[in-house]
Amino acid sequence: MQSNKENVQDLISILVQSGLKHVVISPGSRNAPISYSFYHHPEVECYSIPDERVAGYFALGMSQFIKAPVAVVCTSGTAAYNYGPAVAEAFFQKTPLIVLTADRPEEWIAQGEGQSIFQNEIFGKHVRFFAQLKESSDKQARWFNQRKINEAWEACTLRTRGPVHLNIPLNEPLYDYADRIEQAPVKRTMDMQHALSESNWALIAKQISSTEKVMILITQNADLVNPEDLDKVAALNNVLVLTESTSNASSEHAITCIDRLLEGNSKEELSGFIPDLLITIGHNIISKKIKALLRSHPLKHWHVDESDRFLDTFQQLETTIPVNGKDFLAQMALRVETTINSKYHQFWMLREKAIQKKHSAVLASMPFSDMKAFELILAAIPEQTDLQMGNSSVVRYIQLYNSRRDLRYYGNRGTSGIDGCTSTAIGFALLNERVTSLISGDIAFFYDHNAFWHEHLPSNLKVIVVNNGGGGIFRIIPGPASSNALDACFETPHQRSAKSTAEDFGLPYFSAENEEELAEGLRALYASDGCSILEIFTPRLENDQVLHRYFAALKA
Amino acid sequence: MQSNKENVQDLISILVQSGLKHVVISPGSRNAPISYSFYHHPEVECYSIPDERVAGYFALGMSQFIKAPVAVVCTSGTAAYNYGPAVAEAFFQKTPLIVLTADRPEEWIAQGEGQSIFQNEIFGKHVRFFAQLKESSDKQARWFNQRKINEAWEACTLRTRGPVHLNIPLNEPLYDYADRIEQAPVKRTMDMQHALSESNWALIAKQISSTEKVMILITQNADLVNPEDLDKVAALNNVLVLTESTSNASSEHAITCIDRLLEGNSKEELSGFIPDLLITIGHNIISKKIKALLRSHPLKHWHVDESDRFLDTFQQLETTIPVNGKDFLAQMALRVETTINSKYHQFWMLREKAIQKKHSAVLASMPFSDMKAFELILAAIPEQTDLQMGNSSVVRYIQLYNSRRDLRYYGNRGTSGIDGCTSTAIGFALLNERVTSLISGDIAFFYDHNAFWHEHLPSNLKVIVVNNGGGGIFRIIPGPASSNALDACFETPHQRSAKSTAEDFGLPYFSAENEEELAEGLRALYASDGCSILEIFTPRLENDQVLHRYFAALKA
Repeated sequence: MQSNKENVQDLISILVQSGLKHVVISPGSRNAPISYSFYHHPEVECYSIPDERVAGYFALGMSQFIKAPVAVVCTSGTAAYNYGPAVAEAFFQKTPLIVLTADRPEEWIAQGEGQSIFQNEIFGKHVRFFAQLKESSDKQARWFNQRKINEAWEACTLRTRGPVHLNIPLNEPLYDYADRIEQAPVKRTMDMQHALSESNWALIAKQISSTEKVMILITQNADLVNPEDLDKVAALNNVLVLTESTSNASSEHAITCIDRLLEGNSKEELSGFIPDLLITIGHNIISKKIKALLRSHPLKHWHVDESDRFLDTFQQLETTIPVNGKDFLAQMALRVETTINSKYHQFWMLREKAIQKKHSAVLASMPFSDMKAFELILAAIPEQTDLQMGNSSVVRYIQLYNSRRDLRYYGNRGTSGIDGCTSTAIGFALLNERVTSLISGDIAFFYDHNAFWHEHLPSNLKVIVVNNGGGGIFRIIPGPASSNALDACFETPHQRSAKSTAEDFGLPYFSAENEEELAEGLRALYASDGCSILEIFTPRLENDQVLHRYFAALKA
Repeated sequence: MQSNKENVQDLISILVQSGLKHVVISPGSRNAPISYSFYHHPEVECYSIPDERVAGYFALGMSQFIKAPVAVVCTSGTAAYNYGPAVAEAFFQKTPLIVLTADRPEEWIAQGEGQSIFQNEIFGKHVRFFAQLKESSDKQARWFNQRKINEAWEACTLRTRGPVHLNIPLNEPLYDYADRIEQAPVKRTMDMQHALSESNWALIAKQISSTEKVMILITQNADLVNPEDLDKVAALNNVLVLTESTSNASSEHAITCIDRLLEGNSKEELSGFIPDLLITIGHNIISKKIKALLRSHPLKHWHVDESDRFLDTFQQLETTIPVNGKDFLAQMALRVETTINSKYHQFWMLREKAIQKKHSAVLASMPFSDMKAFELILAAIPEQTDLQMGNSSVVRYIQLYNSRRDLRYYGNRGTSGIDGCTSTAIGFALLNERVTSLISGDIAFFYDHNAFWHEHLPSNLKVIVVNNGGGGIFRIIPGPASSNALDACFETPHQRSAKSTAEDFGLPYFSAENEEELAEGLRALYASDGCSILEIFTPRLENDQVLHRYFAALKA
């Protein structure tokens, strides 16, 4: 059973033939023909999520996990706008999302009809492809629609991945059914790929081989890197590899705590840290400190990226190497043979070890606080867990601890918003067989309260909320901390607790306000059945001081 | 004290001099210079609201009440997108809103920096004016900024009101202060208005005077109509005035329950109801039935509107009369003298009385249900209350009961979304001295749970949630009701209760599940201190049948 509308039939036929498996539906009337046609399709799994902001991020989380397109379907009007945040995040995170917005027929827009806004190109530059489908069932219109639907699929899956948007005008009657029969034609162009020439590869390898200090910085979306290749390159005596947790590409020869290393060295000491050649793989660097440091020193920068040709993070980009990070490292592992005597790798790995010792010493006597809580959390997380890191202080705290190689780290670092971290984690966990832990700050958690409002809560999701009473990050950075408008303009002090959220949705809830309770709480959380929440209360007015003392001790 | 940034100083100086009094701040870092400069300004009241979707609608509610611009200020990134729904609603509701989005400097957009998206023109056609301010403090840049800020104020206040957007790039450091001294120049062009010529007015009056059946349909945003003028015109023997509640322009000579009247007459009887001349005042008609009926009969249609020149709701617009509804009715009250013998007014007023009797009879024996609950609610609301009607079934049920002339009726009928009804009501009530009652369905209420998440809850707000277990409206319309995908695609069945929301935010809570409890609940609600909530549980699977029986009885 499906709608008798040809544009809907073509839409569903082409997307499903192309491989679409998961469709998130926000209940509504105008989108009914699309919703029930997907719902009745045997090859599609549908999820009903009423809050469209949540639905968008939920779909993004699914897509983040399966690395394939997930569709979201909504009715007309402001519903579409509520997808905006997730669409922007998907764009900068390069995650494929197919946004299907039902609309009134074009001729009725801005004519006083309810639930109609300007949906044509509503997401602006935040989608990789947009088309306004036609309603007519004549031959020209169907040829147009079929072509556009095929284009949309390609645009979100080939090379630079990301969200695409199809706006679908639907006239009444919306509830006339037809049998599912015809299959619209799928058009797949062959995926033509350029390869680098042999001489290019040789030149790149030669330059790396002969440079005294080569830094390779690996960040988000590089998680298909081959570990053996990475290990081999990272062990070279003239190469220092830095990896952020979101790269999911750690190596024992690499440094995973960038901020900790930078805080543990004086400005003078860091002058030896500046590479001659910087190579970046992946995008959206978390560490502000490394960005600031490398921007302020002249160096040669190569960016490895198939799509973004002019991502000039350090304002001194020399070239973009237009391949993916996996291929790049594979070639380098094969070709690079250091030809010079360099202490770069050895020196900084030893520094890292020394700072790691200081880190452990400070932590041993640290009072209960945000910083201390993360030590206990990260140690207690079961093996082979997937972590979803909330924005914004959570992800920063996590970078101060060595990456665990058995964990995988994810987060919405495309635009780093706080608005959909929980929804993303829920969508992600739902398709995942591993235990998934969201670690969230209180503000991000309350912001996304409705993330739990549906029937699809995954039993493998364990949520940890670090509740420091509201927006503690603004006590850490110097400007707001000295402002007497702190409460009103920056922080969000509150008495809310995640307990209400747990009760609202009938979820098991645990809490902790000191080390012992936290240890017990973590045990209980991971032993509990189903999606459950552990809330950790930390001292709002002390967290920033603990962190400042920690940084001071690293320097001492 | 204010920021030392010239673009921020000019922004605040011009907006405050122009009359801006209320600023809603979403806490963040990039917007800090704007936030603390407003915060420290003695003539401005600031409100801190963390969820930007809520903040946008909260500001809209304030603006809906004071009928003057309210500003919202947010940080960069997806924060801005969360204003989207409120901006679209403000656009179609014609409510002035000044959206101020802080941004990274233009040269850093799409360069992998956190919290940066394409904010330039992000709201597309949903704002009446957009400008990207400059950061430079040179003379040309300041001249440009000052001009654009003045233009923005004008664009949202003169004639066609609505939202405007200024995107404000701000470089670090963000926390350097200066004394407040300089006042940037305010430029106000005189508000030049065209008046209709004497001959135009005479012609219009003559045509109305000599037409047998003139229908005047008054809808949203017509609420400045002079009651005496309306009474005089509405009493004419050839004129039938229909008013929707959102017009706040009722008259004893007018019909306020359009759907009830249409349901109470057969198709044949309604042929006598079709006017020769239809005049519409205001926009966004709630009644789908009147739209469908009048579209299907040839008639002459004049639309009275200062701004929308081609709002052709019935696909047979003859002309737009480019004045506001108040002036139009004043002129008609002065000039129209019916010159023909017409029974149009008398006949339909009598029919209305007969149907009103049937309505009362059916209600007397109606079981407890959504429909019945509205009778009790509307009778119990204290005198001189302002009503905020939630979308979408609530506003439709309310239209079935005679408008109370001591009440004022509001709702987000610009785009009729469910996403911000509570937030709008809270902002509205906060600046209002009258008691304000939000009546909301359960889905809209849960959708906007975060509406209560801030320190500005108005003690004069009484919230009534009609909880029918999830999206009952889809059981009323025929298509979805017969679909076996009802749960997944249309309704949002749930076990949530507003009690959790009340507990989450520490609000008094009452509940009712039958007539007696409802009467008691309403008494308790209006007697309680502060912002409080009454939740009414109605039978999910019976509400639609009760309503269908009601309509059948009107026809009988």
